[in-house]
Amino acid sequence: MSVQDKERIARAALARLMEPQDSVGLALVHVAGAVDALGVATGELGTSAALEQEISTVLSDGGGPATWAGLKDSLKRWAPRVADLAPDRDLETMRRLGGRLIVPGDDLWPEQLSDLGLQEPLCLWWRGHEQKLPSARHAIALVGSRDSTSYGASVTGDFAYGLAQRGFSVVSGGAYGIDAHAHRGALNGGVAGLPTIAVMAGGVDRFYPSGNEDLLRAVCTQGAVISEVPPGSAPTRYRFLQRNRLIAALASVTVVVEARWRSGALNTAHHAETIGRAVATVPGSIHSANSAGCHRLLRDGGAVCVTDVGEIVELAGAIGEVGSGDKESGEKVQRSAAHDGLSLEDLILLDALPLRSTSSVEKLTVVAGLSPDAVRAGLGRLGLLGLAVSERGAWKRQKNA
Amino acid sequence: MSVQDKERIARAALARLMEPQDSVGLALVHVAGAVDALGVATGELGTSAALEQEISTVLSDGGGPATWAGLKDSLKRWAPRVADLAPDRDLETMRRLGGRLIVPGDDLWPEQLSDLGLQEPLCLWWRGHEQKLPSARHAIALVGSRDSTSYGASVTGDFAYGLAQRGFSVVSGGAYGIDAHAHRGALNGGVAGLPTIAVMAGGVDRFYPSGNEDLLRAVCTQGAVISEVPPGSAPTRYRFLQRNRLIAALASVTVVVEARWRSGALNTAHHAETIGRAVATVPGSIHSANSAGCHRLLRDGGAVCVTDVGEIVELAGAIGEVGSGDKESGEKVQRSAAHDGLSLEDLILLDALPLRSTSSVEKLTVVAGLSPDAVRAGLGRLGLLGLAVSERGAWKRQKNA
Repeated sequence: MSVQDKERIARAALARLMEPQDSVGLALVHVAGAVDALGVATGELGTSAALEQEISTVLSDGGGPATWAGLKDSLKRWAPRVADLAPDRDLETMRRLGGRLIVPGDDLWPEQLSDLGLQEPLCLWWRGHEQKLPSARHAIALVGSRDSTSYGASVTGDFAYGLAQRGFSVVSGGAYGIDAHAHRGALNGGVAGLPTIAVMAGGVDRFYPSGNEDLLRAVCTQGAVISEVPPGSAPTRYRFLQRNRLIAALASVTVVVEARWRSGALNTAHHAETIGRAVATVPGSIHSANSAGCHRLLRDGGAVCVTDVGEIVELAGAIGEVGSGDKESGEKVQRSAAHDGLSLEDLILLDALPLRSTSSVEKLTVVAGLSPDAVRAGLGRLGLLGLAVSERGAWKRQKNA
Repeated sequence: MSVQDKERIARAALARLMEPQDSVGLALVHVAGAVDALGVATGELGTSAALEQEISTVLSDGGGPATWAGLKDSLKRWAPRVADLAPDRDLETMRRLGGRLIVPGDDLWPEQLSDLGLQEPLCLWWRGHEQKLPSARHAIALVGSRDSTSYGASVTGDFAYGLAQRGFSVVSGGAYGIDAHAHRGALNGGVAGLPTIAVMAGGVDRFYPSGNEDLLRAVCTQGAVISEVPPGSAPTRYRFLQRNRLIAALASVTVVVEARWRSGALNTAHHAETIGRAVATVPGSIHSANSAGCHRLLRDGGAVCVTDVGEIVELAGAIGEVGSGDKESGEKVQRSAAHDGLSLEDLILLDALPLRSTSSVEKLTVVAGLSPDAVRAGLGRLGLLGLAVSERGAWKRQKNA
């Protein structure tokens, strides 16, 4: 068996052993590699003080918990599932369903997920034809209430159709309401490629909710249905919330079409904001409870008001650049050149700067973990170097920087 | 005749001679006083190079035109109206209508108009009972389309009623649509004092538009109908646009309830922003052309999304502080103390900082007339002194500073 295959099977097993975003588990994989991590997690390999120290470092660098109880607690958490591990069976299930498992480093792995840092998923279970998943700039997330109004349905349908027509993939969660209208509109508008992606909270072997079975089957045929949890996993509340970070990370813009004052869609928006993606929202009647969450996003700042497809495309910064894979790698080369000679703090700050949306000094202190004074001084330096630019007092990375 | 009476009569005459915001005329009054300015404007007094130089200085300090053609051109502009001057007759008309003329310095003069600087009106022709006009913090402008939808009508009515119930005066322009709903709602909600003020573009002797005659008569009885142009003046397009600055300056918050992509209400919002007042707008359906201007304000930044009366009151910074005249003068004393030792640039910057809304560095460079670097450095100093505070990258004056 090749090294790659061993890695793949180990990740398949780890995905069943660990809940999404198990930070200790992810740090363990980071330090020891998937194969040895699986050995440690199942008790086949022993632990050491040095390993625990390395995990501590990765956790604190990755913004994880400042204190953690040590591997002992995690091993207890993982132990009950060790007996259920059957990664070969899970991979066979995916083949049978016409799907596959992808892991970081694969050609098919969506690179934008690395923006999640330590929170990058171990792997993705993917049902649908084998084709390249879109880059972030060619993917837009449309999310919102399950109990959408006719207004929300009509706006979502129009947006999804228009985005697919322009070659964008519409990412959503496969749920009732806004999600369903998003997938349906994109399927109707899709001209080529991958019009829509449903990111599931449970395993992709089962179409959930059942009322969307026909729709999700169509998404499988024309688009992609993906999940970070293995076949047979139930869509728990925790997994729904973790799933939202994948929707946010896959897309350049997360558009909240309709949301109540408290709504899962706001959680997706928060994830998007955290990793520097653009958050947009659709205004509606102040008499509609289903727009209260959208107006909250507008009031709390951070969300851009969008009223048509053109404004979303503008946010994605991708007008007329669909399919420009070469251009992106060119940008990356230029970027590493521009980095030369920057101090560590300024590099951290540059990485914290969003490319498309803007970020306030306050937010940058949180994202970069620097003091307000250090952020302000650093922004000044990056501005002088042409690497950062401010718009109405908020900052973003200079294009091509 | 007392000095005050002479000043009042001179301003009454000048208001007929000059269009609103005649910057040369206003600078002339600033330099020579109203009585001598009238003498010069009517040709009774001669001009001099020294006078022209002083006017130049006032114009450039006040952000007026960088070059001006000299008094000769202005005298030509004013000459045709000299024969029509009859200030005593105009004052008599106001008395007959149960009104009065007020000028800067009068107890009844709304102090917040001085925030207009050189653009402060020469006088106000006022029809309604004699009572103190509200301070800015107790006045909210509700403005919007003439062809309002049922949504706009209902929102405006609710907001105006709720604001009047809480003791705020609702300021608007007396037009059809949103303006009329604003005045009507405030009249219904008014519990005491001055529930609503209509600022007219033409003379207050005539109720315009005629379809609103009954409404404006009711505003006269319970509130106030005011204008900067004398009785008999037609409501020209130019005067409508200038009138909007008075609506914006009288209130602490200008709320655009409904507006098309191009709308006079956006002009009022722009005036409000220019003098550091809060601009708020109401979201609506993206399918409604009457909300397109509101969404434009949200997208272009500067406007706060408001969905109920509480959020407007919050912007006015006046929760539970209605009628706190003493508190305000207390704040002023404290403020002048805090100013001690500031450089001229920092003083200018402090004056440019809004109290309630926030302002970006870019906007402050315009308002304060300082370079971006000077603004950033000054904000840092004012921040350290506790005189300025930033919110999400934008700045405002620290309360009590």
